[in-house]
Formats: sequence, structure tokens, C-alpha cells
Amino acid sequence: MSKVLVFGHKNPDTDTITSSLVYAYLKQQQGVDAEAVRLGEPNNETAFALEKFGFDAPRLVETVANEASEVILVDHNEFQQSAADIKEVTVTEVIDHHRIANFETANPLYYRAEPVGCTATILNKIFKEHDIEIPAKYAGLMLSAIVSDTLLLKSPTCTDQDVKAAKELAEKAGVNLEEYGLAMLKAGADLSDKSLEDLLSLDAKEFAMGANKVVIAQVNAVDVNDVLGRQSELEALLNKEIADKGLDLFFFVVTDILNNDSVAVPAGAQSAKSAEAFGVALENNRIVLKDVVSRKKQIVPALTDALK
Amino acid sequence: MSKVLVFGHKNPDTDTITSSLVYAYLKQQQGVDAEAVRLGEPNNETAFALEKFGFDAPRLVETVANEASEVILVDHNEFQQSAADIKEVTVTEVIDHHRIANFETANPLYYRAEPVGCTATILNKIFKEHDIEIPAKYAGLMLSAIVSDTLLLKSPTCTDQDVKAAKELAEKAGVNLEEYGLAMLKAGADLSDKSLEDLLSLDAKEFAMGANKVVIAQVNAVDVNDVLGRQSELEALLNKEIADKGLDLFFFVVTDILNNDSVAVPAGAQSAKSAEAFGVALENNRIVLKDVVSRKKQIVPALTDALK
Repeated sequence: MSKVLVFGHKNPDTDTITSSLVYAYLKQQQGVDAEAVRLGEPNNETAFALEKFGFDAPRLVETVANEASEVILVDHNEFQQSAADIKEVTVTEVIDHHRIANFETANPLYYRAEPVGCTATILNKIFKEHDIEIPAKYAGLMLSAIVSDTLLLKSPTCTDQDVKAAKELAEKAGVNLEEYGLAMLKAGADLSDKSLEDLLSLDAKEFAMGANKVVIAQVNAVDVNDVLGRQSELEALLNKEIADKGLDLFFFVVTDILNNDSVAVPAGAQSAKSAEAFGVALENNRIVLKDVVSRKKQIVPALTDALK
Repeated sequence: MSKVLVFGHKNPDTDTITSSLVYAYLKQQQGVDAEAVRLGEPNNETAFALEKFGFDAPRLVETVANEASEVILVDHNEFQQSAADIKEVTVTEVIDHHRIANFETANPLYYRAEPVGCTATILNKIFKEHDIEIPAKYAGLMLSAIVSDTLLLKSPTCTDQDVKAAKELAEKAGVNLEEYGLAMLKAGADLSDKSLEDLLSLDAKEFAMGANKVVIAQVNAVDVNDVLGRQSELEALLNKEIADKGLDLFFFVVTDILNNDSVAVPAGAQSAKSAEAFGVALENNRIVLKDVVSRKKQIVPALTDALK
């Protein structure tokens, strides 16, 4: 059997990196020659989780068709978030928890999406369905993904299923959920070694909304002023991205992981509309997003609706 | 909780009708106010199965947004095969076994597709995952769907999982798989009460292939000459459809359910290319398709490839 590559989205986060490792492990147990790869650099939070549970990051690839004809996508489906040459390979499986858009196949496939907070929560079920034991270190990765995607079970995307899975996995991994979770989030919110350029791409995703090309980037912080203190410099960089990539909106979000609020700095022709989307005014070119932490459940739907 | 409609594709076949009834039943057991509806007339085969197991056909609807804001799709996902106003409602779940195309959502959903021969085979798993018992008469519907979609387990789309599910379900339903299966297929292949117009729409599906608008219709027959004996009349009707709907290809397939071969009659500008797609010559405006019975696995991929 030829090799199958397993990977998550560009600008990878903890769920994307760990789910590729975990699902490749599961497929290997089923006799598939699966290899996890990644489409970008792991962030500080992911590096913390990988080190904690004794993993190296998956191998970096830029294209996939040169080494495999079949691929499995985890934690994403939209082609613009995937490998540059995704249309040249056959997607045989998708395990995801996002909306479906800009995705199509020529043939039937295994597609498993559930409206839960994290891909790892779905993987936890799939292990049970196949009666395959999750080794402690893989349970640690899956726990890390749930903590990351749900901001330690506090995001509105978090479901009862995520809470249940997180508790199970923490026990399997032999760590204290709260203590380990907060340490991991803080490692991710440590922005001291990051330039503003880094922050723009760290967790940026592109979306088509109506006729608009939109990028939404999100960074977690313990103190949002670490980033917003450099707003004029940030705006210059955002405007450069707008010009370089022909964007209609760059929506840059800083999320306070202790208080679970966010502040957005928009750039581009649709900036004013992006504030209207949340029913608030643009002040000092900032949008205060009270109780907003989820790109998927709170930001994307509001912007999609305003820009359609 | 407001009502959720569950339905399959237009020009419904046995899997589409029975899966809507079966999945609505499962959702009802979970406390959801689900109702199965249909987008067209049941064919003779489906009517045979419904009568055998004591069901009425689901209620016919033309549009859905006027009575529900949330819907569940079974046995299809491509919007052009769905309700006319599908874009006006929220698709909360899809249970399917086809390729994914022309489908998108604004929000995360439950999407369960597996590359098996029949939606009922996936439903059989979902019942087990939720530990819900399948009543005998629903098992009978599910068996009917598998027999229909796999031509009594002989189609190349049939997997080991379909065979296993069919045997389980036949036992639960208290019928002999072979005997009941053949009787049902013969009921479906009885075309004596059908006009040629009926045959064109009975099991027709529309596809976008490259820039081409393609309809593929398939009818089962015990003797293909029952249909092909009226070829000139048939061609006139096909050409009328081409003109009326602006099609580039109407690919009309008659499948011999006893020998598991098919003959196609193509119409439209892409007729010659449709023969090339199968590496055979167009003779007497017929394409002999040896060992071809599956639209999904044999006809759609070959035509998609030739017309892209």
C-alpha cells in the first residue's frame, strides 16, 4: 500500500498538529502506511505540548502531490487553507469540526465532521469505535488540542462532549487538566519572542465571504496591550498585507485568555462593515469584542453575514 | 424544539426514501421533532418495499424553507439534487455515501459520509453507536435500500460492510435476502406502466462536469430491449430535454439487472466524448457498457474525467 499523508491546515495550531499525529497513529494501527506532516511552523503553545508528551513536530512539507496520491485532512476542509496542490491529490478522508466550504471530491470518501469544539474530541470517539487503545502520550496530545481550541473549556464552541473527552484524556495522560491546561495556554500567550510580522501569520486563516477575500488572524495574550501597544506599526503591516494579497478585509484579533474577551484591529475596504457586524463602533480603529473568543462560532458567522 | 425535515434527493430511489424514514425514526428516538419528507414520486421498486414492510411514502414537498429552518440531508449533498430552496435553510446534518460537490455551509455541522454502497449501511452503524434497537420493519427498509443500491450485492460499489449489514438486516426483518431482494428488483424493473417520459426522470441526476451541464438517468430492466426497442422515440425526447434545459449531455442508461451490464443512449453536444470516456465506439447511437452498473462508481468518474 502506498503512503498516505495526514495533515491539518496552514499556519497550524495545536489541534491541527496533534490531530495529524494522532490520526496517523490510528491509521497505522489499522495497517495503513500513514505519515503525519505539517504545512507550517508549530506555535509556542504547540511546541510546549509536543515537548511535554515527548513528540517531535511532524515533517514540514510545502506540496504533497510529489510524494503521495492520497491524503487525509484533519481539522480543516477548505482548499485555500490546505496544501497548495491539494487539487492534484485524492482526499480519501476528512476528520473536522468546521463548516464545509470550497471543498469537493470526484469520488466518495470518508468524511466525518461533528459540531464539537475540537477535532481531538471526534478522534476520541473513533478510537472507541475501532476499539483501539489510546497510549498515554497520544492522550496528552489530544487533551492539549481540546484545551487549545476551547480555551480550557471556556469557549462557546466547547460542548459537553469536549468536556467529557478532556477529563477522560487528562486521566489517561496522567496530568491535572486545569494546571497543565493553564501552563500550556500561557506558553502559547508568551509573545515575547515574536515580531509583529510573526503575529500576523501565526494563526491566520483565509475565507471567501460573498465577493470578499478576508483573512482573520487571532493571537492569544495574557495582556492584550503587549500587542495593542504597537498599534500604528501593526496597522502599517496590515495595510501592506491588504495591498500584497488583494484583500478586502484583514481582521486581526487579540484574545485575552484570562478574561475571555477580544479586541480586533481591522484593515481594508470592509473595516467599517466589520465593526457593524458586531453592532459596535470602530473607535481608535479598534473593535472591542466583549465575551468573544471563538473565530469559528462568533467571528466568522458575524462577518460572513455582514459581508455576504 | 422546532421541526426538522429529513429528506433525500430529487427523483428519489429506494435508498433516499427509506433512509429519510429510518433516520427520522432514529432522531425521534433522540427526542428530535423530525419528519421524513420526499422531493418526488417513489418508483415501483420503492413502492414495493414500502408496502412489504407496512409504510406509507413520506409526505411530498416542493420547498422546505416555508416549514422548517433546519434540515437533515440523507443520500445526497449536491445542492442541485436537493430541495429548490436548500440555500435558504440550515443543513444541520448530512448522512451520505456520495462524492462531495456543490455543497457548503456557514456553520459547523454533523457530516457523515463513508465510501460504502448504501446510506442504510452507515445508518446501521449509527444505530449501534447510539445503542438504539432497529425495529423489524425499519430493518426491512434498510435491507431494501442496500439491495437496491448494490443490485443485490453485485455492484462494484458494494463493500464487505454492505454485505454484512444486509445479512444482519435481513435476519432482523425476517425475510430471505436473495428471494426478497430479487422480487424487489423485479418490481422495480417492471416498466410496463411507464411512459418513455417517465423513464427519463425516474432516476435522473444532474451534475456539473467541467463547464458542462450533464444529466445521467438510469433505469433497471429485466430485458433492455423493452426500452431500446423504442430508441428513435427515446432520442427525440432526449433531444427535447437537451434543448429545454440547456444540457451538454443527457446520458441515458438501461441496466440489465440479471446480467449486470448496461447500454447507454447519449444525446447532446458531448455525445461522442461520452463514448470515448468508456473507450468504446458509438454504434447506432448506443454505448455498450460491459459490467457497468454503477452510476456513482463507474459512470460519473469516467464522464467527469472525459469532460473536465
